[in-house]
Amino acid sequence: MTHQSTPAAAATIAPHTEMANCIRFLAADAVQAAKSGHPGMPMGMADVATVLYTRFLKFDAADPAWPDRDRFVLSAGHGSMLIYALSYLTGMPGMDMDDLRNFRQLGSKTAGHPEYGHAPGIEVTTGPLGQGIATSVGMALGERMAAARYGDTLVDHYTYVIAGDGCLMEGISQEAISMAGHLKLGKLIVLWDDNSISIDGATDLSTSDDHLARFEASGWETGRVDGHDPEAIAAAIAAARETDRPTLIACKTVIGFGAPTKQGTAATHGAPLGDDELTATREALGWTHGPFELPERALAAWRAAGARGADEHAAWRNRLEGADAALRETFLSTLSGDLPEGWDTALKAHIAGLIADAPTLASRVASQKALEALVPANPAMIGGSADLTGSNNTRAGGMTPVKPGDYAGNYIHYGVREHGMGAAMNGLALHGGFIPYGGTFLVFADYCRPAIRLAALMGTRVIHVLTHDSIGLGEDGPTHQPVEHLASLRAMPNVAVFRPADAVETAECWALALQNDTGPSLLALSRQGLPTLRKAATEDMPSARGAYVLAEAEGGDRRVTLMATGSEVMLAMTARDTLQGEGIPTAVVSMPCWELFAKQDETYRESVLGTGTVRVAVEAACGMGWERWIGDNGAFVGMDGFGASAPAPQLYQHFGITAEAMVAAAKARL
Amino acid sequence: MTHQSTPAAAATIAPHTEMANCIRFLAADAVQAAKSGHPGMPMGMADVATVLYTRFLKFDAADPAWPDRDRFVLSAGHGSMLIYALSYLTGMPGMDMDDLRNFRQLGSKTAGHPEYGHAPGIEVTTGPLGQGIATSVGMALGERMAAARYGDTLVDHYTYVIAGDGCLMEGISQEAISMAGHLKLGKLIVLWDDNSISIDGATDLSTSDDHLARFEASGWETGRVDGHDPEAIAAAIAAARETDRPTLIACKTVIGFGAPTKQGTAATHGAPLGDDELTATREALGWTHGPFELPERALAAWRAAGARGADEHAAWRNRLEGADAALRETFLSTLSGDLPEGWDTALKAHIAGLIADAPTLASRVASQKALEALVPANPAMIGGSADLTGSNNTRAGGMTPVKPGDYAGNYIHYGVREHGMGAAMNGLALHGGFIPYGGTFLVFADYCRPAIRLAALMGTRVIHVLTHDSIGLGEDGPTHQPVEHLASLRAMPNVAVFRPADAVETAECWALALQNDTGPSLLALSRQGLPTLRKAATEDMPSARGAYVLAEAEGGDRRVTLMATGSEVMLAMTARDTLQGEGIPTAVVSMPCWELFAKQDETYRESVLGTGTVRVAVEAACGMGWERWIGDNGAFVGMDGFGASAPAPQLYQHFGITAEAMVAAAKARL
Repeated sequence: MTHQSTPAAAATIAPHTEMANCIRFLAADAVQAAKSGHPGMPMGMADVATVLYTRFLKFDAADPAWPDRDRFVLSAGHGSMLIYALSYLTGMPGMDMDDLRNFRQLGSKTAGHPEYGHAPGIEVTTGPLGQGIATSVGMALGERMAAARYGDTLVDHYTYVIAGDGCLMEGISQEAISMAGHLKLGKLIVLWDDNSISIDGATDLSTSDDHLARFEASGWETGRVDGHDPEAIAAAIAAARETDRPTLIACKTVIGFGAPTKQGTAATHGAPLGDDELTATREALGWTHGPFELPERALAAWRAAGARGADEHAAWRNRLEGADAALRETFLSTLSGDLPEGWDTALKAHIAGLIADAPTLASRVASQKALEALVPANPAMIGGSADLTGSNNTRAGGMTPVKPGDYAGNYIHYGVREHGMGAAMNGLALHGGFIPYGGTFLVFADYCRPAIRLAALMGTRVIHVLTHDSIGLGEDGPTHQPVEHLASLRAMPNVAVFRPADAVETAECWALALQNDTGPSLLALSRQGLPTLRKAATEDMPSARGAYVLAEAEGGDRRVTLMATGSEVMLAMTARDTLQGEGIPTAVVSMPCWELFAKQDETYRESVLGTGTVRVAVEAACGMGWERWIGDNGAFVGMDGFGASAPAPQLYQHFGITAEAMVAAAKARL
Repeated sequence: MTHQSTPAAAATIAPHTEMANCIRFLAADAVQAAKSGHPGMPMGMADVATVLYTRFLKFDAADPAWPDRDRFVLSAGHGSMLIYALSYLTGMPGMDMDDLRNFRQLGSKTAGHPEYGHAPGIEVTTGPLGQGIATSVGMALGERMAAARYGDTLVDHYTYVIAGDGCLMEGISQEAISMAGHLKLGKLIVLWDDNSISIDGATDLSTSDDHLARFEASGWETGRVDGHDPEAIAAAIAAARETDRPTLIACKTVIGFGAPTKQGTAATHGAPLGDDELTATREALGWTHGPFELPERALAAWRAAGARGADEHAAWRNRLEGADAALRETFLSTLSGDLPEGWDTALKAHIAGLIADAPTLASRVASQKALEALVPANPAMIGGSADLTGSNNTRAGGMTPVKPGDYAGNYIHYGVREHGMGAAMNGLALHGGFIPYGGTFLVFADYCRPAIRLAALMGTRVIHVLTHDSIGLGEDGPTHQPVEHLASLRAMPNVAVFRPADAVETAECWALALQNDTGPSLLALSRQGLPTLRKAATEDMPSARGAYVLAEAEGGDRRVTLMATGSEVMLAMTARDTLQGEGIPTAVVSMPCWELFAKQDETYRESVLGTGTVRVAVEAACGMGWERWIGDNGAFVGMDGFGASAPAPQLYQHFGITAEAMVAAAKARL
């Protein structure tokens, strides 16, 4: 339901300003109605957004998912009403005036910050500052990589970002800027809302950066415009589209533009203007329309802007239909996210070979072997590492690096930029057509945790390859030894944390990670060698149930259940040998993925956990969360503090993570 | 025990080179002996380090803790043998040749990465890249702040950093650089090991940044030298000491300098050179000494360098003795870390007032009121926020901001730089004389998690004020609502996570945080109002035991125990009313700090937890870890996924976090 007032008063206002004011008042009125929100940013950037959406942004409001649309990322996500207003004004289906009225209410599409999948026109969930600009680098890279694969006739679009002062102060912005400049992502254009205000007040309270010089130092073009001068904005964007470097345009704006006593101050940043100020703003801007009412002429102009791309969209469809059939098929199937026919054929053969050969391999090495089987069969897979390629074993044979100006490769040297990598992977996945995976040490998952969280929130398929997953890495010591990381990542909703015990499980977990298309998967992998424990071939993949009985008790009813993940499963197997040798029927449960196990039915879970038996868990990590599986009377063998620097075997002894400790714990409870 | 060979062969080598080669071979031989480590960096930066330690660094090896020493931070911590070699060569007590022989062995002082407190000369634990340079900003700021308080005669030292390419690629470096430039920390000098190599290979695989231009954009002076030309290095350092801006000196070096076939390549970065290459390196550099053997002349020269500062140290001691008695007393007592006489007098009065008045306050507001009582009595306290001052309520009345060139204030506007703030707080604490606290939203603890981890590892007293601690923040939605953060932070060793239930507990938790001088404390605080629940005055602080019975069961033996933290304790109290009303004796346990509770004796814990009663816990967060307190038959009322955007009361209903849910869960188990 839309509400339109008569255009009488508006007739004296220039169309651009009238259109921009539609954004301003939708934002200010929605925030006022919600009694919370951020009016200042949409009011300040309304002119820039109007120029972008009416003159440049390639999109077809009737189909916001058109694959070759330009991407628009609102990195300053607190200004969410800007994007909701634009989606409504341009006529995107599924965004009605009632949605704007329900801003920030339970169940509405118009959440406090833009959430991917909740409403049309939202390319990425934003709000945590800096994430949007960093994700956009992955999107812009995805565009170039897709163009290299499918040609400019199918893939040729820009990525536009609106970023605020806060985005640019976050360290992740530097990682993103540096990556984009190095890779010469010329179709990435960042519009900086240069309003000199952050929450604490003027930005000069805390920063003196010359951002333009900083971006230039990373190979960007830069420009500076009056963010309220539509022709200047248009000229700057037009120039930005012509260079082969990414461009930053500093748009000097007045935050809360139009609010007579509050504009230009932090007071407009994160609170409603208030009834009086809002009334005064209407007077100051000559706006005679009530809340959620729009002048007919402006709305019509906006709707025309929303239809601007329809012809181009149709032409693109024609080009797609005329394209080479095999190319089109690959293009569409990778975009769909479905794994291709035969995606796991080589992997299954690889698993059969592992079971036959029973090699001893570090799971990071086993991971590389799994990749050798998967990457050739899955063209959407894009590898990479944050400068630990040889340690993470992320580069399978035949993978070629993505380079500045040459985007045909499928391996990305992300540099020492874990956070930027996490966000870029999100962007590649969101762009569509790619399944990115990237490596670092498990301990440095902390560096990219905010990006992992956004992937979980958005349901994005990205795969983090996290090697050196315990004190088993040895001499590098406690700064590099994860202790709390498994627990802290398992605590995060919608994240699948895999910790495989041997090469067979590693291959299975890779398959499960690829199949998990509703959120991020993390693979925790060892530096040290692990024997193959799975000796028998199975029809399905036992790892798919999250936990399973690897070795059943023998010689009577099970009395002890030993549970473990990853590199400690072999210790559990040794402990089982001892207990069985003493006539105590003992089972070993391998638990490569808690999240998948938690989803199994209770009967299965009980059968695996061995309710009523003595339960002992071992993991070279802190015990938080294990109580769920071992129960009140169970025992946990693991870490209760930070690690140390020494050869790995000594550390396991030193911290008492041994088969002997498991045996003792079990026997003490029998 | 030292081993010295005759100086015959060395006599033909210039003293500087001979001294630098001592570092090179101690590093290469120790890595070779350990069969792991990073020889390339110490070999490459040996000349720079030699110039710094022999000509500039103000220190007295006999007393590495002299408060007015220059600070030296090895941000590229993987090159740890550089710092161990320097500590040994200059003659610091407690660093013997046997310590170098035991590099990376269990129990040795010479861990894989430098660990604060393990050996002399280590100012900060480093290894996670970028942390060292960011921590050094806090140290350099601490120096200026201490000088503003106690005068240049007592405090006047430089902070030198050696950083690598990896440190500069990490986003945290930008936050640190920006902060240092803004604050005009002219006595901060960064020596960049500009060797153009990272683990994956040449840095141009992943970056094209002009770092000098980037630093200049943030207000730094920059210089560029041949990192193997001692006079050029000396001239650059001398110039850097004369400016009022921080300085970056790019030292162009050859990684693994001297290794004939491996120098200048990634092969020297993270692996032993190998026996053959090491022999060839000895030949190439004319080094006739065996492993861990040093030429007498060079060692004597090094020891003389270590004693260089003794006179200056003595003069400083004289100035300290001659200083105003009150000033000296404050200087020494803040340095000692002890809280001053009467540090909690006002706080105790404040608590008494709260119990009498029983206000309803958000705990973030209660936190500010606690600060009003604490800050005036504790001059070491330094406040701040990552641009959320008004939301975090971190600025008490009378606090004045630290500004560029004016360091007398006690409040830091950290800007939108959570990670930089975390590291800077570590640096302020490590410098000595300060107890820093800083605010952001709990959800953004993820942005500074690596810095929190280092504080935990080092045992540094820093206090993170983390407000907006649940879905109770309401409309900002799931990007801003922490769900997994309490669990993920509780999982980290040596971190005290406080979540107070009302204004009284908030004040108590602040006192406990200040008293916790062996690690970081985190305060999770509500946005929404909370009633005062503690109605009776107590002799000691119940919060000090981590958990306690807030309301005992009445009318018979306790049958139900309701446990909660923070804003959910009031729900537990309501649920108790219902259960008591139905004749079910029910206690409420408030658990403001799990870590303190876990340290109590078992008798106390059992008495609080009510073993044998029905136990129900409530927390507006994910349940991981609660099994430990509720046991197999307990119930948890909380979140099992991300939050949503809506007014807070609706969210509590929507997610079923209610007194009714607690009552139902308890009754289902009776």
